[in-house]
Amino acid sequence: MQLHPRDRARLVDAAMGRVPCDLAIRNVRLFNVLTWETYEAEVGIVDGFVACVSADPDGTGGRFPIEAAESFDGGGGLLIPGFIDSHLHIESSMLTPAHMAEAVLPQGTTTLITDPHEVANVGGVEAVEYMLEASEGLPMRQFVLVPSCVPAVPELGNAGASFGRDEVERLLDHPRVLGLAELMDYPGILANSARMRAIMDACERRGGFMQGHAPFLADRDLNAYAASGVRSDHETRTGREARDKLRLGMHVDMRESSMSLNAAAIAPAVKDFRNLSTLSLCTDDLEPEDILTTGHVSRVVARAVECGLSPEQAITCATLNAAREIGITNLGAVAPGFAADLQIVSDLARPRPSAVFAMGRLVARDGRMLAAVPRRSFPQEERNTVRLEIPSEEALRIPAEGTSARVRVVKYDSLNGSTTSFSMEDLPVEDGYLSLGGDRDLKFVAVLNRHGGGTRFVGVVRNFGTARGAYGATVSHDSHNLVVVYDRPSDALAVIRALKECGGGKIAAVDGAVVGRLELPIYGLISRLDADGLAREISGMKKILRSALGLEVPNPLMRIVSLALPVIPKAKFSDIGLVDVLAQKIVPLME
Amino acid sequence: MQLHPRDRARLVDAAMGRVPCDLAIRNVRLFNVLTWETYEAEVGIVDGFVACVSADPDGTGGRFPIEAAESFDGGGGLLIPGFIDSHLHIESSMLTPAHMAEAVLPQGTTTLITDPHEVANVGGVEAVEYMLEASEGLPMRQFVLVPSCVPAVPELGNAGASFGRDEVERLLDHPRVLGLAELMDYPGILANSARMRAIMDACERRGGFMQGHAPFLADRDLNAYAASGVRSDHETRTGREARDKLRLGMHVDMRESSMSLNAAAIAPAVKDFRNLSTLSLCTDDLEPEDILTTGHVSRVVARAVECGLSPEQAITCATLNAAREIGITNLGAVAPGFAADLQIVSDLARPRPSAVFAMGRLVARDGRMLAAVPRRSFPQEERNTVRLEIPSEEALRIPAEGTSARVRVVKYDSLNGSTTSFSMEDLPVEDGYLSLGGDRDLKFVAVLNRHGGGTRFVGVVRNFGTARGAYGATVSHDSHNLVVVYDRPSDALAVIRALKECGGGKIAAVDGAVVGRLELPIYGLISRLDADGLAREISGMKKILRSALGLEVPNPLMRIVSLALPVIPKAKFSDIGLVDVLAQKIVPLME
Repeated sequence: MQLHPRDRARLVDAAMGRVPCDLAIRNVRLFNVLTWETYEAEVGIVDGFVACVSADPDGTGGRFPIEAAESFDGGGGLLIPGFIDSHLHIESSMLTPAHMAEAVLPQGTTTLITDPHEVANVGGVEAVEYMLEASEGLPMRQFVLVPSCVPAVPELGNAGASFGRDEVERLLDHPRVLGLAELMDYPGILANSARMRAIMDACERRGGFMQGHAPFLADRDLNAYAASGVRSDHETRTGREARDKLRLGMHVDMRESSMSLNAAAIAPAVKDFRNLSTLSLCTDDLEPEDILTTGHVSRVVARAVECGLSPEQAITCATLNAAREIGITNLGAVAPGFAADLQIVSDLARPRPSAVFAMGRLVARDGRMLAAVPRRSFPQEERNTVRLEIPSEEALRIPAEGTSARVRVVKYDSLNGSTTSFSMEDLPVEDGYLSLGGDRDLKFVAVLNRHGGGTRFVGVVRNFGTARGAYGATVSHDSHNLVVVYDRPSDALAVIRALKECGGGKIAAVDGAVVGRLELPIYGLISRLDADGLAREISGMKKILRSALGLEVPNPLMRIVSLALPVIPKAKFSDIGLVDVLAQKIVPLME
Repeated sequence: MQLHPRDRARLVDAAMGRVPCDLAIRNVRLFNVLTWETYEAEVGIVDGFVACVSADPDGTGGRFPIEAAESFDGGGGLLIPGFIDSHLHIESSMLTPAHMAEAVLPQGTTTLITDPHEVANVGGVEAVEYMLEASEGLPMRQFVLVPSCVPAVPELGNAGASFGRDEVERLLDHPRVLGLAELMDYPGILANSARMRAIMDACERRGGFMQGHAPFLADRDLNAYAASGVRSDHETRTGREARDKLRLGMHVDMRESSMSLNAAAIAPAVKDFRNLSTLSLCTDDLEPEDILTTGHVSRVVARAVECGLSPEQAITCATLNAAREIGITNLGAVAPGFAADLQIVSDLARPRPSAVFAMGRLVARDGRMLAAVPRRSFPQEERNTVRLEIPSEEALRIPAEGTSARVRVVKYDSLNGSTTSFSMEDLPVEDGYLSLGGDRDLKFVAVLNRHGGGTRFVGVVRNFGTARGAYGATVSHDSHNLVVVYDRPSDALAVIRALKECGGGKIAAVDGAVVGRLELPIYGLISRLDADGLAREISGMKKILRSALGLEVPNPLMRIVSLALPVIPKAKFSDIGLVDVLAQKIVPLME
């Protein structure tokens, strides 16, 4: 696949000197990812594409004057391609596509390969179309992959949508859709499940890209996963995995997200491969504050170099390798006919661009956008997707008989991880309802289907971390039902009412009153604020979760989002019951 | 683009060990072009694709047993991907696609990127379709690019066909057509000529590959050529050209043909580029004897290593880099889901495969095909394309008045090159016809339109090299008209009659009788013989040209093929007159 200039003839005319370029970038040293040389160059740009590169690296000729309507003096800096994030969910940053662009362009990222998996689970095809429409006409490239596993595990709970072959095919036909997003259902793929095969065949027939998700796969399983047509993986956590995946022809998207830091394991393991053309870099899930303070793909580059890649390797991974991974032949390098997505940095090992050019236009300087992206409105942004009846207080209790009950409690393994296991505990029964018996480490958890399905389930969690009050969210992977953790149903009700009213987000309540709120009204996942505003709000919300609810964990905001994620071991909740993750089945609350 | 297995599910099943593979290759060391490691491995193959690779390069696991219907013991040899020839004309080897497959498969070449430019100039769309049909179902991959310049220069002579946008679009829609073949008309491209732009836009809209042809282009011209959308070049003859083209994002197809040996200039110039992912290897034009005795892509690999590339670089250029150049994502490496085009060699620097596997089947051992390719017949092979009226003897003379005439003679610069210039000479006139005046270095040249157009032209050449007799051919780039060099019209007539009768080829006559013949009845360009038979016939013909006609030049067979090629400087013939190549116009014979 190629990116198409509006008018090829104009590029040729400009290179020949028959018409002036739109823009010339002068006084830079080009680090050429194609040859790993660095030399003085001038670059002429027309209609968002590079028309010509004037340079004489060998002192044997090659320089010619570039006439241009505008000139940019690069101050002797290093010119490199804009960065490509090979895998991310924009929703993880809780930003709209436009606000995401404003956040990452100043960091040098000019292309995103996005998986709108989260909005898809809430809003289905229409939500993916929203992400496509809202990323149209932005001063950056946002490619979209079709979420492949909506819902993640159909039997274990209800999401807001279900994608089969029809939904996938409809979305695959969009010109900015590259293929299928992370194929998480590797058990289904390894078993040749009809559902996965139908989706993958539809993608393969269109020549689409198939992005993988293969944590810890090895040996036969890894071979079979690669043979299935999946071409990449971003869930690589060990050196051995990285080496084996590259050897088996997969692209490894080395990840540094807010939660998962994989460079330390991967980079040392692969840095000595003399061909390293299938490693790229991704952010997966980044909080807005992390983008603003630590960078975007740039942070992965810096970390990759700290962990052992050469700066040349890291920059090439973040540009040319990623473009090849998704099969775009004129992206990721600075050369005639290539997209004019460029940045000027002073240090390849710690890239902080002094200037960023996207689609041929200067869009950011010294970490700041030059102009805000025009605000457009979309009907999907106005729609309240929290569709549920406010339950009675009684519905948030667990009826039980006798004086005590043997209860299957979901117990966190620690305060800084998301893994859990079941623990059978004897809890008192009071007035016909289960009681937490004054144990402050025990809380009720309610999962309310918020997609209009009406289902709900109430269970018990140990070691969640809150000391008091209720904490609820509509961000709850992957089905994004409403999850609330509480000891008193009245607090839970305050949270549920507030979430329904504002269209979703994260809410904390104490003594029946809301004390903290992070509103995410777009699909219950995305804020209307820009990254700066949202980062401030998040910071305030984290403080409240710590001070008012006593939630002293590394990231109190994220503590709740995996309580209902049925692919993380071993014990989770859903809107239809307790999930035994390893057995992949619903198990009873009481025995 | 991806190559599609018949049944993905079966690959997965085989990798998982649920069904046996068709074939397992055991006891080999895999040189992995993806990482440049070499390690012991077993490879399982299903339906022509690699299903799994069992290996434990780090001693940390990864081996598993591969069950298979058949096993092949590689004897401890090095397993590498089959070679890809990134640019060639099968017609240059005068072989049918099937005979070409039989010739190159034993040399380890499993994929050809072909330009059927020669047959297209004779037979048009139907001839390209012949090459597509005749390469269907072969035990090798022959991809086709649509000839972009038919005829080469429309104003300077008549070919058998003319390709505009319609012809090109019809052919581009074939599933085995990858794009446009060498875009030779670089002056047209640099000038944004309507003809070239229309063809290139049609290709770009389909996402097709555009193969270049850019001898000596530099600076602005080279930038403009790259900006036009052209992605490669195989006409690189100097180190500077190679470096500049790679820097500007073009793929360089390093060529070692029978005539053009470019590795000595290119390899030393680029070997130190630390990223060298856009260099590939090609043969362009190889005589059958050269294939049989010196190898095919294997010969380019060996030469590349002699000239300075590391063996790892050379093998990667001949496999993975070429696959990426044409945009096929599962070709050119040994990994699950990749095409099972493989070979076993003992030395990466001088690859001579002991076994070649194409599309998963063992097809050659120790330089020999295991089974001949089934012979199929095609109506196009039976058609006599030498469509002309036998001229009178008088028509092969040049009428002139008076006793002498000032004649524009085409003079060869030397006996071993194809460049020429005009020389104004005074020649005697006898009985109303121009005479060569007994000068044995002068010969008549007749160019007869053999495509039914009826045009013809007679001129004079100096230093062609024959001492006596007549030598004629229907292989005459690029229009492939009938060209005959002679002193006596009676000899020329014998040649013309024989060529018409046999459907084309190369014929020598002395004293009115045919003394040597190389029949090429398919489009007047291709033999019915296989490579062995044809090489013997060519060898005999060369001997006759030397002994009977006294043509003592390095390659007497090729001496005649560029006499009418209007893109080689400076003076050439066509069926409508004398061509001033630099001025690109027809000039008068006499002043």
